[in-house]
Amino acid sequence: MATLGFIEYKDASAEVRAVYDDIMATRKTDWINNFWKALAHDPATLRRTWASIKKIMAPGALDATTKEMVYLAISATNQCGYCIASHTAAARKAGMTDEMFAELMAVVGMANETNRLASGYQVEIDEKFLIR
Amino acid sequence: MATLGFIEYKDASAEVRAVYDDIMATRKTDWINNFWKALAHDPATLRRTWASIKKIMAPGALDATTKEMVYLAISATNQCGYCIASHTAAARKAGMTDEMFAELMAVVGMANETNRLASGYQVEIDEKFLIR
Amino acid sequence: MATLGFIEYKDASAEVRAVYDDIMATRKTDWINNFWKALAHDPATLRRTWASIKKIMAPGALDATTKEMVYLAISATNQCGYCIASHTAAARKAGMTDEMFAELMAVVGMANETNRLASGYQVEIDEKFLIR
Amino acid sequence: MATLGFIEYKDASAEVRAVYDDIMATRKTDWINNFWKALAHDPATLRRTWASIKKIMAPGALDATTKEMVYLAISATNQCGYCIASHTAAARKAGMTDEMFAELMAVVGMANETNRLASGYQVEIDEKFLIR
Amino acid sequence: MATLGFIEYKDASAEVRAVYDDIMATRKTDWINNFWKALAHDPATLRRTWASIKKIMAPGALDATTKEMVYLAISATNQCGYCIASHTAAARKAGMTDEMFAELMAVVGMANETNRLASGYQVEIDEKFLIR
Amino acid sequence: MATLGFIEYKDASAEVRAVYDDIMATRKTDWINNFWKALAHDPATLRRTWASIKKIMAPGALDATTKEMVYLAISATNQCGYCIASHTAAARKAGMTDEMFAELMAVVGMANETNRLASGYQVEIDEKFLIR
Repeated sequence: MATLGFIEYKDASAEVRAVYDDIMATRKTDWINNFWKALAHDPATLRRTWASIKKIMAPGALDATTKEMVYLAISATNQCGYCIASHTAAARKAGMTDEMFAELMAVVGMANETNRLASGYQVEIDEKFLIR
Repeated sequence: MATLGFIEYKDASAEVRAVYDDIMATRKTDWINNFWKALAHDPATLRRTWASIKKIMAPGALDATTKEMVYLAISATNQCGYCIASHTAAARKAGMTDEMFAELMAVVGMANETNRLASGYQVEIDEKFLIR
Repeated sequence: MATLGFIEYKDASAEVRAVYDDIMATRKTDWINNFWKALAHDPATLRRTWASIKKIMAPGALDATTKEMVYLAISATNQCGYCIASHTAAARKAGMTDEMFAELMAVVGMANETNRLASGYQVEIDEKFLIR
Repeated sequence: MATLGFIEYKDASAEVRAVYDDIMATRKTDWINNFWKALAHDPATLRRTWASIKKIMAPGALDATTKEMVYLAISATNQCGYCIASHTAAARKAGMTDEMFAELMAVVGMANETNRLASGYQVEIDEKFLIR
Repeated sequence: MATLGFIEYKDASAEVRAVYDDIMATRKTDWINNFWKALAHDPATLRRTWASIKKIMAPGALDATTKEMVYLAISATNQCGYCIASHTAAARKAGMTDEMFAELMAVVGMANETNRLASGYQVEIDEKFLIR
Repeated sequence: MATLGFIEYKDASAEVRAVYDDIMATRKTDWINNFWKALAHDPATLRRTWASIKKIMAPGALDATTKEMVYLAISATNQCGYCIASHTAAARKAGMTDEMFAELMAVVGMANETNRLASGYQVEIDEKFLIR
């Protein structure tokens, strides 16, 4: 399940419940996914991580769909199985279609390829790209 | 500079020049960045990589700005110095503002953090996220 | 199970048994975990890897608990499922409490986040941090 | 220098100065390293990241030296040049000796090696390590 | 199974069938592995990826066995479970023996170890290794 | 230069000199590259790492050129600048031509691309690839 197990709502402290309530209200759902139930063993990390996610993933200069797709792209790059599964679901909920998913993955694959070609060929950064 | 050196336009074969010409025409610039000049030692890989990039990065279900930002997000995740520099420039050219950059980096940081929390806590994938 | 299968004690050569015996004696257990039983198909690598681990993980300037927690932190960063499971067990056996685990994971998450912020923002190394 | 440049104390807004002041007070130094001066272009991320670091890196179930060494171990694993330089300095300031550094690196190297042996040999997780 | 499911031969479009046919003819097999059946939801990526793989993995200055072993080495480094399983099978089919596999994994482990020792110790590149 | 500096031959202890001598004799060179001179601050790690490298990189079921190319492929995947530079030199010395290098990099790029397509699409391992 998870290293320290899961903390279900009914067994949670008031502090943890407050975070769970905010997650459900923000996401307009009636359940909590395993990630948060595992993290709940460390209420300080639970609260801090959720507060950060809530703030960072809210629409701003980038819309919510773009942000979720970036999250998924990184999770695929890092080979995190849980994160790929949960953020695929989140990105879909935020509006990612099958076509958008397919294009996203094509970019993910290509970026991971050329990242290694650039380093493997020891390509020096162009003068024009340098920041001074 | 680069493992095999750079091939400048004036020294390039007709095959390589054709790719260089297409890169400049597609990107509406009059210069070729080092990545391609390093790859030109392997014309087959040069041609294939450029053809893939041209196709994948063209606007489709995702716009060009989003694609360039995903590319940058992955390059930052992979710690590829050349790629971060070149794709920061490319994303800016495609319309990424300072605000968009800052939000993008916040998502990149957060995704890399929670990817490790999820794996470190050995969180099992939720039934609802499983694909059957 | 494993690419080349597992070699059980009863089926092992004298050379492999000697390593197994030393693992069990050093760890004060009566069983061998799968990692070693898979590696036993390559006795030279088995012997060398165990000799290195035994030496490196022994208490020295760092105590055994700290070393096991660093091992776990890296395994979580690398998304190695087997290693996370086995080194969580090893770290607990070496004295890691739930509180220590939770703090460790918080550091792991934060380091993975700021590693990407530093590279994504292309932050130059401070003069004071440079080694000359 | 950095993608968006650095924001020096004299040019910083009151909001950014408050974070800088807290960094200097907490660390008992009179200067701010480049990471924070780059992040200052995004005051919300600056404040949030510093607040998280301050909380996470404070002594708790793990002491400050251990936490800084874990941070360095992850930075070396991720190949983040800036982070390796800054956290080597931080770990030394927190008490890491040359002997501790050498032992830490030996563990980092070994963990990165066996992480790949475990996955490359497709080693199945032992029953005893499974969490139920 | 896969995010968008699998497309079996009988349900595939003419365009997808053409790729499937070429995969089976090139590999002298009568089945298609899941990777391609997942990718088939994006026919452009399916066709491009297969064309690239077919070209890159064909014997040239490097023989097919060496190429498959490099592919496996990278998959183990990246912790990609699917890729480790499929490229172990492919490398065996291309002639990798148990002895070659064991030696390959030993190199993979050692390279991942010294990669981190080099970066962790902040080793400067030798003059003789620099490319000018 | 390096975190703990370099130890030159003339300043080295007898124990370190013995390793240096063996490196030069084995490689038929009259100089020691920076990696070893940095590691020499930890004679136990220096001796152990060299002994492992010497054994692992010697020709066996795989020839020396193949092993050096695998080492380079992993270093490019991991974005280790020092390792890419030193193992490009080592692979060339072992017989890698420009054509072999170019083909190697093409495989490295492709493997890193499809590793992420496989995980991003959440492709399940085929029955035929499973080890039982």
